[in-house]
Amino acid sequence: MKPRATKQEIQHVIERIEEFGYKVHSIEGEERVVIGVVGVGDVTACLESVEAMPQVEKAVRISAPYKFVSREFRPGKTQVVVDGVEIGGDEFVVMAGPCSVENEKQILHAAEEVARAGARLLRGGAFKPRTSPYDFQGLEEEGLKLLARAREATGLGIVTEVMSDRDVDLIAEYADLLQVGARNMQNFALLKTLGRCGKPVLLKRGLSSTIKELLMSAEYVVAHGNPNVILCERGIRTFETATRNTCDLAGVAALAELTHLPLIVDPSHATGKRSLVPAVSRAAVAIGADGLLVEAHPCPEKAVSDGAQSLDLRQFATMMRELQPWITLWKQMRVTETAAAV
Amino acid sequence: MKPRATKQEIQHVIERIEEFGYKVHSIEGEERVVIGVVGVGDVTACLESVEAMPQVEKAVRISAPYKFVSREFRPGKTQVVVDGVEIGGDEFVVMAGPCSVENEKQILHAAEEVARAGARLLRGGAFKPRTSPYDFQGLEEEGLKLLARAREATGLGIVTEVMSDRDVDLIAEYADLLQVGARNMQNFALLKTLGRCGKPVLLKRGLSSTIKELLMSAEYVVAHGNPNVILCERGIRTFETATRNTCDLAGVAALAELTHLPLIVDPSHATGKRSLVPAVSRAAVAIGADGLLVEAHPCPEKAVSDGAQSLDLRQFATMMRELQPWITLWKQMRVTETAAAV
Amino acid sequence: MKPRATKQEIQHVIERIEEFGYKVHSIEGEERVVIGVVGVGDVTACLESVEAMPQVEKAVRISAPYKFVSREFRPGKTQVVVDGVEIGGDEFVVMAGPCSVENEKQILHAAEEVARAGARLLRGGAFKPRTSPYDFQGLEEEGLKLLARAREATGLGIVTEVMSDRDVDLIAEYADLLQVGARNMQNFALLKTLGRCGKPVLLKRGLSSTIKELLMSAEYVVAHGNPNVILCERGIRTFETATRNTCDLAGVAALAELTHLPLIVDPSHATGKRSLVPAVSRAAVAIGADGLLVEAHPCPEKAVSDGAQSLDLRQFATMMRELQPWITLWKQMRVTETAAAV
Amino acid sequence: MKPRATKQEIQHVIERIEEFGYKVHSIEGEERVVIGVVGVGDVTACLESVEAMPQVEKAVRISAPYKFVSREFRPGKTQVVVDGVEIGGDEFVVMAGPCSVENEKQILHAAEEVARAGARLLRGGAFKPRTSPYDFQGLEEEGLKLLARAREATGLGIVTEVMSDRDVDLIAEYADLLQVGARNMQNFALLKTLGRCGKPVLLKRGLSSTIKELLMSAEYVVAHGNPNVILCERGIRTFETATRNTCDLAGVAALAELTHLPLIVDPSHATGKRSLVPAVSRAAVAIGADGLLVEAHPCPEKAVSDGAQSLDLRQFATMMRELQPWITLWKQMRVTETAAAV
Repeated sequence: MKPRATKQEIQHVIERIEEFGYKVHSIEGEERVVIGVVGVGDVTACLESVEAMPQVEKAVRISAPYKFVSREFRPGKTQVVVDGVEIGGDEFVVMAGPCSVENEKQILHAAEEVARAGARLLRGGAFKPRTSPYDFQGLEEEGLKLLARAREATGLGIVTEVMSDRDVDLIAEYADLLQVGARNMQNFALLKTLGRCGKPVLLKRGLSSTIKELLMSAEYVVAHGNPNVILCERGIRTFETATRNTCDLAGVAALAELTHLPLIVDPSHATGKRSLVPAVSRAAVAIGADGLLVEAHPCPEKAVSDGAQSLDLRQFATMMRELQPWITLWKQMRVTETAAAV
Repeated sequence: MKPRATKQEIQHVIERIEEFGYKVHSIEGEERVVIGVVGVGDVTACLESVEAMPQVEKAVRISAPYKFVSREFRPGKTQVVVDGVEIGGDEFVVMAGPCSVENEKQILHAAEEVARAGARLLRGGAFKPRTSPYDFQGLEEEGLKLLARAREATGLGIVTEVMSDRDVDLIAEYADLLQVGARNMQNFALLKTLGRCGKPVLLKRGLSSTIKELLMSAEYVVAHGNPNVILCERGIRTFETATRNTCDLAGVAALAELTHLPLIVDPSHATGKRSLVPAVSRAAVAIGADGLLVEAHPCPEKAVSDGAQSLDLRQFATMMRELQPWITLWKQMRVTETAAAV
Repeated sequence: MKPRATKQEIQHVIERIEEFGYKVHSIEGEERVVIGVVGVGDVTACLESVEAMPQVEKAVRISAPYKFVSREFRPGKTQVVVDGVEIGGDEFVVMAGPCSVENEKQILHAAEEVARAGARLLRGGAFKPRTSPYDFQGLEEEGLKLLARAREATGLGIVTEVMSDRDVDLIAEYADLLQVGARNMQNFALLKTLGRCGKPVLLKRGLSSTIKELLMSAEYVVAHGNPNVILCERGIRTFETATRNTCDLAGVAALAELTHLPLIVDPSHATGKRSLVPAVSRAAVAIGADGLLVEAHPCPEKAVSDGAQSLDLRQFATMMRELQPWITLWKQMRVTETAAAV
Repeated sequence: MKPRATKQEIQHVIERIEEFGYKVHSIEGEERVVIGVVGVGDVTACLESVEAMPQVEKAVRISAPYKFVSREFRPGKTQVVVDGVEIGGDEFVVMAGPCSVENEKQILHAAEEVARAGARLLRGGAFKPRTSPYDFQGLEEEGLKLLARAREATGLGIVTEVMSDRDVDLIAEYADLLQVGARNMQNFALLKTLGRCGKPVLLKRGLSSTIKELLMSAEYVVAHGNPNVILCERGIRTFETATRNTCDLAGVAALAELTHLPLIVDPSHATGKRSLVPAVSRAAVAIGADGLLVEAHPCPEKAVSDGAQSLDLRQFATMMRELQPWITLWKQMRVTETAAAV
C-alpha cells in the first residue's frame, strides 16, 4: 500500500484479494502496510485487479518458497522488540544466562551479573531437551517461576525454550521470547502454535537444516500470524569433531541477504568450548549479526548441563568488556548501512 | 528373573529396588521377565541385595547410555506385533502405501493392490510434516478415517505418522503402528507421550542423527513404558545430492549389534528416486533388516507429495515378486542365526 | 561406427572430425568401434558432416560433463580384464589381501588362503598413504617384489596403490591393477599419468567426493587414453562415527544408472569394523555391484595398519562360503539384465 | 636448549639422542633452539639422559600425534617470512589476485591494483586443479613466467599452486610461497617433497579434512625439513548448498589453540559468492586469523575460472579500505596477546 493508505482502503484491498480465494496476511511497517498473499488461484487476474485499486503502490509476484520472511517482501530490516529491547536495530543485543535454571540462588546470581556486564535479556532453560531420558529434564514450571523472579530483580526480559505445542500457553505467560531449539526447528505443530502465541519467537537453526529450511520454518510462524521471529545460528553438524558443531558464520551473512528478520549467533552451542566463545562472539559482531545468545553460569563445573561451553560470570564480564570496541565498529557499520538503504 | 518366577516374586523384587530410590521398568519376554532399573543411588548395595533374593537369575550393571534397548539388556531379538503381524521374527515384513492419504478411491485402490502383492501393513500419511507452510498438510482426521476404511476392506494394519504429543490419543484410536518422522526423532515431548500410548511405535532416524542418538530416542519411549519400538533407517543427510539422502545400510548392521529392537529400511525416502528402490530393497534384505517401508501410489505423477520416489502399484508388485528369492535366503539366514543364539 | 566398419573407414571419420578442431578418442567394443569427440567447435556442422559418411551408424551429442564414462556413450556394461579376470561381466569378482605388505611369509600365506577361499585377485599395499608421517609408510619397491612373488606362487593378479605420478611406471611394472586411493581421487596429475600407463585402474571414491566428481575423475583417466577403469565405493565421510565411514550402497545403484564402468565395494574401509564386513558384502552383492575389495590378514591384531577392519583368513573363508547362495542369485539377475539389454 | 647454548652443545645433544635410535629435527627460534625427537625407542632413558646434559633447559614428552606443529612444541606463534613479508606477526597480511593467470595484461593489471589497495602478496594459478578434464588446466610454465613478470613490476611476492611432486622444483624457481590445494592436502608424496623444497608452503585444508588431519599434513612438511608452513581455512564440505562451502571460522580459533603456525582464511572459496567476501573477511580479522587469501580479477565475468566468487579490482579496493578499522582493532589485540605471552 502507499504510505498514507487508510485502514478502510487497506481493508478494501484485503477483501478483494480474498474474493480470489487467497489467504491474506498484512504486516504493518513504520511507513506503510505490506499485504502478503498466499494460496492457489488466478494470480494474474488478482494482481491486475489489485494493482488497479487506489492507494496500492505495487503488486509483485514473489516466487521464493518463503514469502513473508524474504527481503523481496520487506527490503529493510525488521526490528523485533522483546520486553522493550529492540533486536535488529541499532543496538547489538546480548542475551546471556545459564543453560538450565537450577535453583533460585543460581539464576538470581547469574541474572544480576550478566545484567551488570551488559546483557539485555536473560536466557535460562526450564524445559530441557536432553538426548537421554535419564538426564535432568529441567525444573519445568518451577523453573519458569524462578525466571520470573529474576526478571523482577533485574529487569531483564526472559528467553526460554518451549518443546511442545502443549506448553506454549504456559511458557508464554512467563517468557518474553520463546525459544525453539535446534531439534524442534521442523516441529511444525509447535511452529503453527507459536504463530498464534502473541510473543516473539527465537528460532534456532536445526543441526542439519539448510538456510532455506530455516527460512521455511520461520515462514510457518509468520504465516500463522506472528511476524516477530528472530533467527539463531548455533552451529551445524558436520564431520568435524574438534568443535561440538560447525558455526556457519558465513551462513549468517548469506541469511542477511535473504531475509529481513533479525539474526543472532549462539557461540556456546556452536563451539561447545568455553575458550572459543570470545573469538566467535567477535566474529559474529564483525559478520554483522544483530546479537548473541551466550551461556554464562555462576559455576560451570557444577552446571547440570553444558558446563564445558559455559563461561563463568567473570569470564562473561571480561568478554563483554573486550567486545566493546568491536561493537563500536559494528554500530558505525550499521548506521552506514541503514543510511544507504534509505 | 528366573523363567518360572511368579508375579508375587517379581513384585517383591521391584519393591526392594524401589526402596533404594530407583525407578523400575519391567519387560515381559516369552520365557522370563527382565526388570530394568534406572536412577541414581547406591548401585553396589542394590545389586547385592537383589541378587540375594530368590528367583532372581542375575543382576547386571549396564553402562551404555541406553539400557532397555541394548543387546546387553536383552540378547535375543524383540518381536513387535502390529495388528497380528510379527516384526523382528521369522518373516520379512513389507509395509507399503502412498505418502499421503488423498481420497477414498486412492487409498482403497492402493491398499488392495499392495495387499495382493504381499505387503502386510498399509502406510499412509494423514498428518503431513511439510517443509513449506503452503504445501498440502494432510487430510488429518478425515485421512485417519479413510485409513480405517482401507483396513476394513483389506485387513491390513495401519501405519501412520504422528507429529505432536497433542495428537497421540486421536491417532492411536485409528492406527496400529504410530510413526515418528525423521524431523521429530528428538521431539522428546512426543516420545514421552508415545511411551504411554499403548500402541507400537515406528521411530525413524533423524536426518542428521547418529545411531547412538536414535537408540537414545528409542530409550525415551521404552523408559516411559512402551517396549514396542521399531527403528527405521531412511537415509541421512550428507554432502551427496545424487540421491535425496544417503542410505546408511551398514548402519543397520551396526544397529543390529547394539539393539534387540526390530529394524526396517525405507528405500523410498533414502533414495528419493523410484528407479533405485528395488536395488536398495534387495540390499536391505541382504543386510539383515526385518522389513521395508515402501511408498507405492496408484498414480505417482499425480501424487500430492513425494511422487518422484513412489513406485506405481504395478512396479511395486514386480519388485515384490523379484524380491522373493532374496527373502528366501534371508529366511534361511534368520533361522541359522536364531538357532545359533539359543 | 557400424559393426563391420574397416580400420580405414574409421580412420577416415577420425580425420574428418579433427578437421573441425576436435580431439578424438575411440573405444573398441566387441562388436563395433565408438568414437568419442571432445572440444569446442561447430558441433552441428560436424555432426551433420560425420553422419553423412559411410559406415557411420549414428552421431549423437552428449551433454553430461562426463562423456566417455557415461551410459549415453556406451549403453551396455564395460568389462575390464585384469590378468585374465573379467570384472563387470558374468562373474562376481572378489579381490582380497592385507592392507599392507609386511613380509614374505605374511603376503604368501595371505595370498594362498584368499585364493583357496575363492578370491580372484590379491590386494596389498606397498606404498601406503598414512595420515601421520610417523606411521609405517610401506615397503615400497621391496613390497612390490613380494607381491610379484605371491603372484607367481598363486597365479593371482595384483592390485596395489599408486600415490604419485612419479611412481606410476615403477608400479605398473609389477601390478595388474593400479589403485588410486580415496585421498588421491582428485590428484589430477596422477590421473593424467594413469591415462597413459597401459594398465587397468581401480579408482576409489574420495571421502567427500560426490558421485559426479567420481565420474569426472574417471573421465580424466579415460580421456587421457585409458578406458580400463573400475570404480570403488569405500564409504564417505559423514557426521556418523559408529562406523569409520558411511557406505553409500544406494550410490552404487545410482552409479550403475549413470556409467558403464564396473563398480566394486570395499566393505572393510566403508565400515572400519571386521564384524560388519560380511553383512555389507552381502548387501553389495544384492545391490548389483561387480565385486568386492576386502581386507584379509593372517593375523589382524598384529597388522601394521587397519587391523580392526581386517578379517582373519578363516573368517574370510567363512564369509566367502556364506556369500555363495547370494552370488548365485546375483548371477541369475545379471543374466536377466544382460538379456534385457540386448 | 637454554637460550645461550652453542652449536657444539646442541650437536652434542643431537648425537646423544640419535644413539637411542630416534630421528632428530631442530627448529631455531629467535631466542633458543628446540630439538624435536620422533621415533620408537626407550623414551624414559632418553629423556633422563638428555635432561642431565648441560645447556638442556627441559626435556618434555609430547603425546599429540603431531609434534612440531603443536603449541606444546612451541608456545609462541611462528612467523613465516615470504619475500620479506612476515605472516603470523604484527601485520595482517592480505594475499590477492585472480584464480588463474590468463595473460600478461590481466595479471599485470591485477597485480598493480591489488598492490595499490594494500595486498602484500600476489596469488595466481598457473597449474589448475579442475574437476573436469575438459576445463582450462592453466598456462603452466608460461603462467609462472607471467607471475614473475608481475613480481618485477610490482614487487609483490608470488603465491601459486603446485599439484604434483614432479612440479615442485620448477614452481619453486618462480614462486615465493607454494600453495597446496584442498584436494591435495593428503597427497603425501607432494607433502614430503615440499618438506625439502626450501620455500614456504601454504597448506589449504581439505574439503572434508578434520583440523587434526590438517595438522598431521602440516607435520609431514615440517618433519621432512620445512618449518615454514602457513595453514589456510577455505571452507569445508557440508550438506549446506547456499554457500559453496561452509567456512569453519571457529575452526580457525580452535587451530590457534593447537598450533603455532600462521593461519589465514580464503573467503572466496569458502563462500563461492562475491557479495559475502567482505563480511567473511571482517569475521576472519575478528576471529584472529593472520591474513587473507582473496580472489580479485580485472573482469570477473570473463574469468576462465571461479568468476562468481572473484571481486573486481574496485570492489577489492573498497573492501580493503573498509577493513582498515577492523584491522586496527586486530593489531591492538595482537599486541596485547603477544605481551601476555611473554
